[in-house]
Amino acid sequence: MLLEKTIAGIEKLDAGVMEKARRHQKNLVKPAGSLGMLEEVAVRIAGITGAIKPVLEKKTVIVCAGDHGVAARKVSAADQEVTGQMVRGFLDGGAAINVLAGHVGAEVICVDLGMIRPLDDPRLRVHRLGPGTADIAAGPAMSRAQARAAVETGIEIAAGEIEKGVKLLATGDMGIGNTTPSTAILAAFTGFPVVLITGQGTGIGPEAMQRKTQIVEQALRVNKPDPRDGLAVLAGVGGFEIGAIAGVILGAAALRVPVVIDGLISGAGAMIARALAPAALDFVLASHLSEEPGHRVMLNWLGVRPMLQMNMRLGEGTGAALSLPLIDAALKIAREMATYDQAGVSDKGLR
Amino acid sequence: MLLEKTIAGIEKLDAGVMEKARRHQKNLVKPAGSLGMLEEVAVRIAGITGAIKPVLEKKTVIVCAGDHGVAARKVSAADQEVTGQMVRGFLDGGAAINVLAGHVGAEVICVDLGMIRPLDDPRLRVHRLGPGTADIAAGPAMSRAQARAAVETGIEIAAGEIEKGVKLLATGDMGIGNTTPSTAILAAFTGFPVVLITGQGTGIGPEAMQRKTQIVEQALRVNKPDPRDGLAVLAGVGGFEIGAIAGVILGAAALRVPVVIDGLISGAGAMIARALAPAALDFVLASHLSEEPGHRVMLNWLGVRPMLQMNMRLGEGTGAALSLPLIDAALKIAREMATYDQAGVSDKGLR
Repeated sequence: MLLEKTIAGIEKLDAGVMEKARRHQKNLVKPAGSLGMLEEVAVRIAGITGAIKPVLEKKTVIVCAGDHGVAARKVSAADQEVTGQMVRGFLDGGAAINVLAGHVGAEVICVDLGMIRPLDDPRLRVHRLGPGTADIAAGPAMSRAQARAAVETGIEIAAGEIEKGVKLLATGDMGIGNTTPSTAILAAFTGFPVVLITGQGTGIGPEAMQRKTQIVEQALRVNKPDPRDGLAVLAGVGGFEIGAIAGVILGAAALRVPVVIDGLISGAGAMIARALAPAALDFVLASHLSEEPGHRVMLNWLGVRPMLQMNMRLGEGTGAALSLPLIDAALKIAREMATYDQAGVSDKGLR
Repeated sequence: MLLEKTIAGIEKLDAGVMEKARRHQKNLVKPAGSLGMLEEVAVRIAGITGAIKPVLEKKTVIVCAGDHGVAARKVSAADQEVTGQMVRGFLDGGAAINVLAGHVGAEVICVDLGMIRPLDDPRLRVHRLGPGTADIAAGPAMSRAQARAAVETGIEIAAGEIEKGVKLLATGDMGIGNTTPSTAILAAFTGFPVVLITGQGTGIGPEAMQRKTQIVEQALRVNKPDPRDGLAVLAGVGGFEIGAIAGVILGAAALRVPVVIDGLISGAGAMIARALAPAALDFVLASHLSEEPGHRVMLNWLGVRPMLQMNMRLGEGTGAALSLPLIDAALKIAREMATYDQAGVSDKGLR
């Protein structure tokens, strides 16, 4: 039972090291708290890693891909074949996530959790759970066994990267139609009216928006997902790649590695992870606030705060990748800044 | 008349190149607009530089330092001697701005526009306009000639860096008490009630906050700065370093180099720059939204949008430095991403 074993292995942040990290921040030559989230990120990563001045050199963006039966109802501007085409693009290296991950010194790995068609490419990690999920507006997306398998795949992928020396993970997604299940997951956990949290995804117009809203409502009526049961929500209205993202988060948390989430789909995965193991969220860092209207509600529910607000809505892990230099900056502040004593600056009134 | 010559030299963005840059963005393999501000930044820099795929290799953070007579009224948590101590820290390399600029590959230069005491250090650029400004609650901060000299110094510093091959400038500040003149400048241009836009600066308590609010109001009553006259606002309620920041912006704009502003003090400089030459703002990029409550009002008035929201309130140029990898990312997207055709992805409905 990999899932249960992983959940049982998630421990609390190290409060003693965090207190030391907070004291260290106060000694640095700046008014206490004046670097805002840079300080908070450094303190949290101290609590995760157990080190006051950690270095997180190797980084990987794990892009989880899957298709969605509900795409047949035209909830996206794009055709379903685009999922596989984009994944091939990720492998070839010309997509946005490749450019941004390259820019920030992160590797990109791509996992097929169940696209409509398999892709024959040795660079792709293949863990297919089916040719896309079933239509959530007509019944459950997948079986409970598939939901568990999706999460456990994510756990194994995270563990494999960490085994290879990766110190910081980021999540990304690809799956035409996947803002629809993500919005359903968001509604299932928060109870927010669907109309308030449904967005334009790839860029649909008003007519498709209305259809999408109704389909999310229908998916919730048909599947009645129980928010106390993470696997039930995933099986009812989720997606294979969303389950894998949840697993990546649980796997990272169990091995005390920080994991940076991207936008709405990664956030849906984090909601599933939190439902399965609330303590896992201590290991999650938010990167950006996306253009999707539900994302703010989602991050608030998750209890995480984004660093970037750049009106992005691409997915792929692009927002998460873009935030990695900010996290590196937070750690460098902790490692490299002079203290008041070292700099010969009067700290009177400043800390 | 360097100021007048510089203002006359500020031309419009290149609309033709911007249109080409927008078309280029639409060809890249992502839904149109889905990279949000990354796309906007790339298009704007195309309009500034005249290149659709520019490289902005060399970067400098110009930290302008000065002291403020109003500090004697205890508007800051720190003693005035801290300005010079911190500037020495910048020269020694252990301050937050050094760590962050090093992290993002930018040089830091530090300019003394008028600290209370001169600092004898060959690494410091010395353009002193006096031993701090006069107390703005009792009369003007400086003469009109000093205001002009502050701005012209900034113009010359920017031109000198650009002459050396710098392609991207960022502004920073150091000056104990300088949120007080910055708030007065903000109130002078926007008419916002002072109590709504006054913040805690280095971290003052409620009593000092009330005093600070009253002192800003008094400075406005005493000096009656005319918002149609940028030099009058600077001379009345400004600061030497704020004038120099305005000059850096004007100098960068005249030489078609993008300039990234930091928090409240850099923003006050940008307000002066806009009053002197509205077209200069086309060359300004905002970096972060600071914790200072007036900063949102200020950025709205300037018509610029921040990328980062990290509750920072340190100054020194730290927020501006932190945003430089985001700007590099925007340019890399334009240079390195594959087009729909190259990637073999169906663009139907996506652009």
